[in-house]
Amino acid sequence: MAVQAYGAHAADTPLEPIAIERRTPGAHDVQIEIAYCGVCHSDLHTVRSEWAGTLYPCVPGHEIVGTVSAVGDDVTDFKPGDVVGVGCMVDSCQHCPSCGEGLEQYCENGFVGTYNGPTPDAPGHTLGGYSQRIVVSDKFVLTIRHPAEQLAAVAPLLCAGITTYSPLRHWAVGPGQKVGIVGIGGLGHMGVKIAHAMGAHVVAFTTSEAKRDDALALGADEVVVSRNEAEMQAHANSFDFILDTVAASHDLDALTRLLKRDGTLTLVGVPEHPHPAPDVSALIFKRRSIAGSLIGGIAETQEMLDFCAEHGIVADIEMIAIQDIETAYDRMQRSDVKYRFVIDSATLAA
Amino acid sequence: MAVQAYGAHAADTPLEPIAIERRTPGAHDVQIEIAYCGVCHSDLHTVRSEWAGTLYPCVPGHEIVGTVSAVGDDVTDFKPGDVVGVGCMVDSCQHCPSCGEGLEQYCENGFVGTYNGPTPDAPGHTLGGYSQRIVVSDKFVLTIRHPAEQLAAVAPLLCAGITTYSPLRHWAVGPGQKVGIVGIGGLGHMGVKIAHAMGAHVVAFTTSEAKRDDALALGADEVVVSRNEAEMQAHANSFDFILDTVAASHDLDALTRLLKRDGTLTLVGVPEHPHPAPDVSALIFKRRSIAGSLIGGIAETQEMLDFCAEHGIVADIEMIAIQDIETAYDRMQRSDVKYRFVIDSATLAA
Repeated sequence: MAVQAYGAHAADTPLEPIAIERRTPGAHDVQIEIAYCGVCHSDLHTVRSEWAGTLYPCVPGHEIVGTVSAVGDDVTDFKPGDVVGVGCMVDSCQHCPSCGEGLEQYCENGFVGTYNGPTPDAPGHTLGGYSQRIVVSDKFVLTIRHPAEQLAAVAPLLCAGITTYSPLRHWAVGPGQKVGIVGIGGLGHMGVKIAHAMGAHVVAFTTSEAKRDDALALGADEVVVSRNEAEMQAHANSFDFILDTVAASHDLDALTRLLKRDGTLTLVGVPEHPHPAPDVSALIFKRRSIAGSLIGGIAETQEMLDFCAEHGIVADIEMIAIQDIETAYDRMQRSDVKYRFVIDSATLAA
Repeated sequence: MAVQAYGAHAADTPLEPIAIERRTPGAHDVQIEIAYCGVCHSDLHTVRSEWAGTLYPCVPGHEIVGTVSAVGDDVTDFKPGDVVGVGCMVDSCQHCPSCGEGLEQYCENGFVGTYNGPTPDAPGHTLGGYSQRIVVSDKFVLTIRHPAEQLAAVAPLLCAGITTYSPLRHWAVGPGQKVGIVGIGGLGHMGVKIAHAMGAHVVAFTTSEAKRDDALALGADEVVVSRNEAEMQAHANSFDFILDTVAASHDLDALTRLLKRDGTLTLVGVPEHPHPAPDVSALIFKRRSIAGSLIGGIAETQEMLDFCAEHGIVADIEMIAIQDIETAYDRMQRSDVKYRFVIDSATLAA
């Protein structure tokens, strides 16, 4: 079945309309008519081949919300008309220890990304959500319980939401804790909302004085402009947990020194150039940790969606037509978006 | 009371005999006649002022074993004749959260080191275990339950032992786990013995092929020569926990990549020059952590001493006369000791 998509044929050519094939649903497959797809930095990195190994044609998009249009014979959890989501993964080995624990993102054999992952389907690699339709194994389909009018703003939860929810949950953030969220962008603005809903005292860190009021509006209890030494110093040794969403190379020591004894700084962005080497004494003298975290498992993603539905949490978005994707990329690179672009997939038919 | 000690008057002068004063025991003090004192790298760093802030005269030594000769009126846990130990700390604030949790090594107001720490006693900073006698607040005195003939080899437990025991315990090392100990020196050889006694499968990492048999004899189940890429690669993604005792700057990524998902690499040495910046993707893609750990609290030090007595664990030592301390320092800097020098404190009277 041919469907309309948007993608690139090479790293140095713009995205353009492409007709792609989607497989006929197999016994365990769910066929989804895509309504909205969020625009993630990873989309841009991949389509421009800024990370190794992009396969072309490349159709990005892994923050997908849509409606089920068909299901395979063995699918019991979904039926046509259901509102569902698909995130960063569409398959994994299902038999390694990580898959066994519901942590498919850490699949020991490598999960299959929603785009640029290996698949027997043509053209041999997965094609993502900048398309009208997608067919996904039912184990990787999520149920959306938000009200219909919020669906566009739900899309970014599938990557930005789970990428922040998972570490906040794993490191047991909750009431009585002081939690930092570093970087108020696509990921960070979700982190502020979710950590606030988890009951923590949330401090947002931004390099931009201009984002102070915005961060408070998102649910931060306090905002620290990280370029201001005195503001930083006032928070020394006081954080239980800091979630760092900034991928650009930056000084980690300034953040680790804000952690209490036994506190953890968790990174969710891979910098293009390494961060400066951390000061080991800042770790040793307070038994602090620096950790990493990758998206989240499927069960946890469902938990996050339900948590967000219950707490009325969605992303702050700016809707675009697919034809404006290159402009959106340009603006995203300048952090000129509050806080996530979402593609209105109806525009693919235009 | 004047007692004989060995110390330095400046960073560039050798250690020599010094007469120092010890206070008359106060109500909560324990007076200890020192029998043995281990020689730690920190002694050398401090006495040579390789770290900032050494106060002179400097009398090092914080791996102290001896016999109680007097106690203050309010001391109930110790009496003359008791065999006791003193480690890296002789005081702390006793009212901060860390002290309240028995983690005096993380005292928010700074613990008082056994040497080079602030004290009202002359000369205004603490003087350590390279001396005939020490007077210490009873809260910082440990009970030694090892047999009398092992006492010299118990001394290094007070720093090298607790520095490795504490992280192994904190990160819950035990049966069914695969644990790495990096560096087979004063700290590492204790780490191997203790992790083995905790029931873990222990892999010792050394840069020296010559240490392979020694590490097995210490209790390692396997030995990896870390310069051998193939040997390292065979252990990828397999460790629950790695304790890194090497203070010299080295590549941490080669070790983090050996951790399983959710594994932790814990550092206990502060490098003179920073380690190369760690690869953040090695953390993110397996939710791994890099952490630090500092010695251990007093209650935990007692627990470690009792654990070691129960399991027949002591350090492998080479006994020296205090007059040979400079030669011992030279050899320690070349790692030419298996695995800890211990001063026979009787030689101070010579």
